[in-house]
Amino acid sequence: MNKISIAIFGYGNLGKGVELAILDSDDLILQGIYTRRDPSLVKCQSNVKVYCADEIYNNKDKIDVVIICGGSATDLPVQSPKLAKDFNIVDSFDTHANIPKHFDTIDEISKLSNTTATISCGWDPGLFSLARIYSCAILNNPNIYTFWGRGVSQGHSDAIRRIDGVADARQYTIPIENALNDVKAGKNPVLTDGEKHMRECFVVAKKGADLTKIENEIVNMPNYFAPYKTIVHFISQEELDTNHKGLPHGGSVISIGKTAGDNTQVIDFSLELDSNPQFTGCVLASVARATYKMAQEGKFGCKTMFDIPPAYLCALSPQDLRKNLL
Amino acid sequence: MNKISIAIFGYGNLGKGVELAILDSDDLILQGIYTRRDPSLVKCQSNVKVYCADEIYNNKDKIDVVIICGGSATDLPVQSPKLAKDFNIVDSFDTHANIPKHFDTIDEISKLSNTTATISCGWDPGLFSLARIYSCAILNNPNIYTFWGRGVSQGHSDAIRRIDGVADARQYTIPIENALNDVKAGKNPVLTDGEKHMRECFVVAKKGADLTKIENEIVNMPNYFAPYKTIVHFISQEELDTNHKGLPHGGSVISIGKTAGDNTQVIDFSLELDSNPQFTGCVLASVARATYKMAQEGKFGCKTMFDIPPAYLCALSPQDLRKNLL
Repeated sequence: MNKISIAIFGYGNLGKGVELAILDSDDLILQGIYTRRDPSLVKCQSNVKVYCADEIYNNKDKIDVVIICGGSATDLPVQSPKLAKDFNIVDSFDTHANIPKHFDTIDEISKLSNTTATISCGWDPGLFSLARIYSCAILNNPNIYTFWGRGVSQGHSDAIRRIDGVADARQYTIPIENALNDVKAGKNPVLTDGEKHMRECFVVAKKGADLTKIENEIVNMPNYFAPYKTIVHFISQEELDTNHKGLPHGGSVISIGKTAGDNTQVIDFSLELDSNPQFTGCVLASVARATYKMAQEGKFGCKTMFDIPPAYLCALSPQDLRKNLL
Repeated sequence: MNKISIAIFGYGNLGKGVELAILDSDDLILQGIYTRRDPSLVKCQSNVKVYCADEIYNNKDKIDVVIICGGSATDLPVQSPKLAKDFNIVDSFDTHANIPKHFDTIDEISKLSNTTATISCGWDPGLFSLARIYSCAILNNPNIYTFWGRGVSQGHSDAIRRIDGVADARQYTIPIENALNDVKAGKNPVLTDGEKHMRECFVVAKKGADLTKIENEIVNMPNYFAPYKTIVHFISQEELDTNHKGLPHGGSVISIGKTAGDNTQVIDFSLELDSNPQFTGCVLASVARATYKMAQEGKFGCKTMFDIPPAYLCALSPQDLRKNLL
């Protein structure tokens, strides 16, 4: 069997998750890790070679797909279009409002370059998007509710860490149980994000810091915390390191539709993840497999998980899939 | 907009569900209902014309896709290959062990005839198959548990009705809560179908029938009831008609995998349906839309939901899908 050769571009938590997923897949092989840091300082989890980012162009003929593991704010809007000129790529671009623009930019480049680029993969956007599209395809105008958590929001944790007097912090997004129960009971409530979720913060303060001031700054922070019920706990660094080291996450997409006027039909897709970046890495690796197959068939241009036949994501043959999973 | 013209072949509970789904979809139009009964005796829910089954060939140029709503035991193995010669078709063939043979037979015919046939659609096989394939694509060798219920099994209800002395019956398949909880807790138990489900039967006995004998025949019936914990209630016809008239169903596909050795990742896809045939009808209607699109693109042959890009199932444009659902 010819293995599909994958490069990882960017090596943070997500890149590490992708690395583990590739090592775990018999039909994928990791060609190399590409980083903007000094490669000699990067410790990876396998024996694979770590390169300077720009060296990727020297290895163009050894790479089937590049999985780009940068951030959505400033990395991916630059890296994905640039790499799509020379490579089949996969990214996890998750700034929902900018997805159409990101798509159009990359679509033009990859069609001109005869490459295939699958963007916005992971679990939201990604698997949760799939739950939404299948629900919309099947039910007529369903009410769709997306709940996130219980899980660590890295963006919110970072926002707390930037407050004066804060040494470290971890923020959990938690679905509000009553809201979740009303939705599952088919009550079709109208809910803002703040009515669906609360935020629990574990904060390590610097010595002598004003705890009341920190707490006020957190709970009143616009967009991040002000619209939400927010609970702040001050704990020691040891407790943070012992009890809040992981990056669990998850959530639910609950879709509720009616047939024949009054029959309620509920579709519930939920994830409970011990490690968000490792799970997201697994999704990206499976999408890399599908992206390679699409490129082999000449399906060039920008794609999302909406465009991928589910069988393309699997290593098994169509016959085995039908026999074992249908 | 040119609507996609659909014919319904076979008009039982499922055919009625498909009819409602088509009436509810702006981009689909119901061309006709085809039945083996006397069309003048068939009362349908819309103003559509009811035809004799064989008349379908006279309307070949008016039909884009035929949704075949016969049973898997004897109808679909004959009807699907026959109709696939002249039409794009969708069926809900659900005899899991015979799917590979059904697929191969239809694949040969539809490739020779330049038609597209999507088989084994609905929720299991169908949406539950999708939950299984996405889990297998993402997680390395996950444990996948499928639970059915709480819901009415028409096959088991029929089996009870065939017992001497039984006037009417309704059987509910119910997941065993402890098993479900063990699975959700990540204990990875090894479970037979009988350890995952129990069966609750509501039986109307004929006047003077021997209730003990009926109960014994039910609980000891091989395959259907003997491997399961089975509870039998004798009730009046009035109570059956009042409280057990609906056809609710549902269930869960729970997939549990590990990353990095000990991080547990759980994917849970669940349905809770007030009406099984109406929901299944909605799935078949959305697959008919996708089947038409595949046929238009020259993707002939036999397909399953594994082969359908999710966007094909939706009436919305790819742009709107990315903007609203990704």
